[in-house]
Amino acid sequence: MNRETEIDSTVSIMRRIRSIPLNSVPMRIQTPYLLFLADAQEVLSLKVAKGIVDWRPELCVGEIALPDCAVTLGVPQLTLTEAKERGAKTMVVGMNNSGGTIAANWIPTVLEALDRGYDIASGLHQRLGSLPEVRDQARRNNCQLIDVRHTEIELKTGTGLRRAGKRLLTVGTDCSVGKMYTALAIEKEMRARKFDADFVATGQSGIFISGKGMAIDCVVADFISGAVEQLSPDNAANHWDIIEGQGSLFHPSFAGVTLGLLHGAQPDAMVLCHAENRNFMRGMRAHKLPGLRETMELNLQTARLTSPDARFVGIAVNTVDLSPKDSQAVLEKYATEFELPCVDPVRTGVASIVDRITDLWPSD
Amino acid sequence: MNRETEIDSTVSIMRRIRSIPLNSVPMRIQTPYLLFLADAQEVLSLKVAKGIVDWRPELCVGEIALPDCAVTLGVPQLTLTEAKERGAKTMVVGMNNSGGTIAANWIPTVLEALDRGYDIASGLHQRLGSLPEVRDQARRNNCQLIDVRHTEIELKTGTGLRRAGKRLLTVGTDCSVGKMYTALAIEKEMRARKFDADFVATGQSGIFISGKGMAIDCVVADFISGAVEQLSPDNAANHWDIIEGQGSLFHPSFAGVTLGLLHGAQPDAMVLCHAENRNFMRGMRAHKLPGLRETMELNLQTARLTSPDARFVGIAVNTVDLSPKDSQAVLEKYATEFELPCVDPVRTGVASIVDRITDLWPSD
Repeated sequence: MNRETEIDSTVSIMRRIRSIPLNSVPMRIQTPYLLFLADAQEVLSLKVAKGIVDWRPELCVGEIALPDCAVTLGVPQLTLTEAKERGAKTMVVGMNNSGGTIAANWIPTVLEALDRGYDIASGLHQRLGSLPEVRDQARRNNCQLIDVRHTEIELKTGTGLRRAGKRLLTVGTDCSVGKMYTALAIEKEMRARKFDADFVATGQSGIFISGKGMAIDCVVADFISGAVEQLSPDNAANHWDIIEGQGSLFHPSFAGVTLGLLHGAQPDAMVLCHAENRNFMRGMRAHKLPGLRETMELNLQTARLTSPDARFVGIAVNTVDLSPKDSQAVLEKYATEFELPCVDPVRTGVASIVDRITDLWPSD
Repeated sequence: MNRETEIDSTVSIMRRIRSIPLNSVPMRIQTPYLLFLADAQEVLSLKVAKGIVDWRPELCVGEIALPDCAVTLGVPQLTLTEAKERGAKTMVVGMNNSGGTIAANWIPTVLEALDRGYDIASGLHQRLGSLPEVRDQARRNNCQLIDVRHTEIELKTGTGLRRAGKRLLTVGTDCSVGKMYTALAIEKEMRARKFDADFVATGQSGIFISGKGMAIDCVVADFISGAVEQLSPDNAANHWDIIEGQGSLFHPSFAGVTLGLLHGAQPDAMVLCHAENRNFMRGMRAHKLPGLRETMELNLQTARLTSPDARFVGIAVNTVDLSPKDSQAVLEKYATEFELPCVDPVRTGVASIVDRITDLWPSD
């Protein structure tokens, strides 16, 4: 971990001197990746790996899983040897569990990968180096252990002061409803239209995809909003930061992170992300999903603390479980009910949301 | 820090085995205390030290300050030698700054205290041991460095599940409006009436006063609500945890912590704390203080996510700046407007709030 710490500190000092946006990832993640799916039973728990496949397929030579893994990401299923032959440099621990810990049955694969010269990158809370056998194996093979959730960068508490430039934040009715996907799709569409727009990663998947950012749910609680202010500093008047949201104001485990992120992001524009046909909050049988209107109202009410003119510019619905016909019907229903562009980013793209942004903020 | 880590880990393991509430403070803080006021310019920045003087005066032999300190806590002003002669064992760094760092001009006093055999206890974010000269001096003198904000205890994400027992949480229009003071006063009054009630510390001052608890603003953001669930676990049906609130849902720096704490606490009862004659959020010239009704409405709305029947049982107003007559008038005004017991805990005590609790939850 010392090596990482040094890198982070160096990055941190350099960035403070050069005063460019903070970056919590050592710029040393070697690609391409081999994705380790561990013993995942549902794709939801593979957000990290799936995000990389969806957005940077060229960086993924394949996937490797434990025998009892129940899912695939549709990339080649390879052994450590085969992946190495295809050039894989880093094995990404692609599965996440709510505790963010490294399960005992994952360790043998990690140790073998290190023996074959792979760097290991993880988005879990638990540091890879906290496992003595992993730390020692990495040292022996002179391989890097990269925990994208951890940073040594000096953080400050939030100021709540307005910053120059424009900001869009994706918010959700729940966790895992497509906030990162929607933000990346909006960045892509805006860039295609020559907007000056940057995706701002606030979670491990986004960091792997964009190569920078900070895992907001991992900072000390006192610094949530301050960290987001540092991630999205003053910028040109027409610049857009497209900030990846986290969690939901209605999720009993993570709403605090969501609120701090919202206050630090001080969004001009918000996009509501929702997964159709989900009845309960993720992992929370006792908690029903909030309604879209209720979610928008609480986000608007709280966002206005640091961004008085915050408004919604669209709704992004994950309708993967629906037929094309039903999907279309759902999108039209919400579009009418809320008088907002309503899309399924995967099925329809996000053009109508960017149209709305263009109408509301015509560049001079 | 190793010694601390060992102690914490031991405590943690013991507590998991014995499944009693977590405790993030090594049970080794030697008393009595000498309070180090550093170069404080306002009493607000001495919350830690003032809390100890107010609630455990018998633990404070005196105070020591730097030449440019502008305030006193009214305890004997002593040199390190004089305090040692009066039995002081631990020097408490009693000043807090928003960054939570140890200022360079404080260090000489800390080093001299270590040379005279004092343990040093701090509630700052920055670990005392992160300063090499302090760490080495402590080692040389075999003194303890105690950072009450840091714990090695294993945390879990919040579940949002209902727990047995009753809980009261103090919430505020702003930071530093008396949430800890009010909670301690309610614990004292309830115990005098033979309630089974325990103060639950969520900040450094409360930890020094009660000898246990967890500094919630210092846990990793993902675990805010989970940490509070661990601090206030299942209990007897008639047991009351009187949980110290933190920050304010309307404070741009800390609202995330406040919301996570609220969800983890799942309060049956809430007491609104407010400082009269304060116009702006603490340290936030750009942000006006929210109204009492607005604050109660947002706290009720968000509290109901994990505590559907949450309700307010009183209002505690800090009227220190007002004449007795004006204070009385303010308390009566709020009592009438909100139909709740309204007190100034320092001037009137909190009996009327505990009366209301007795009416609402008559013990069987």
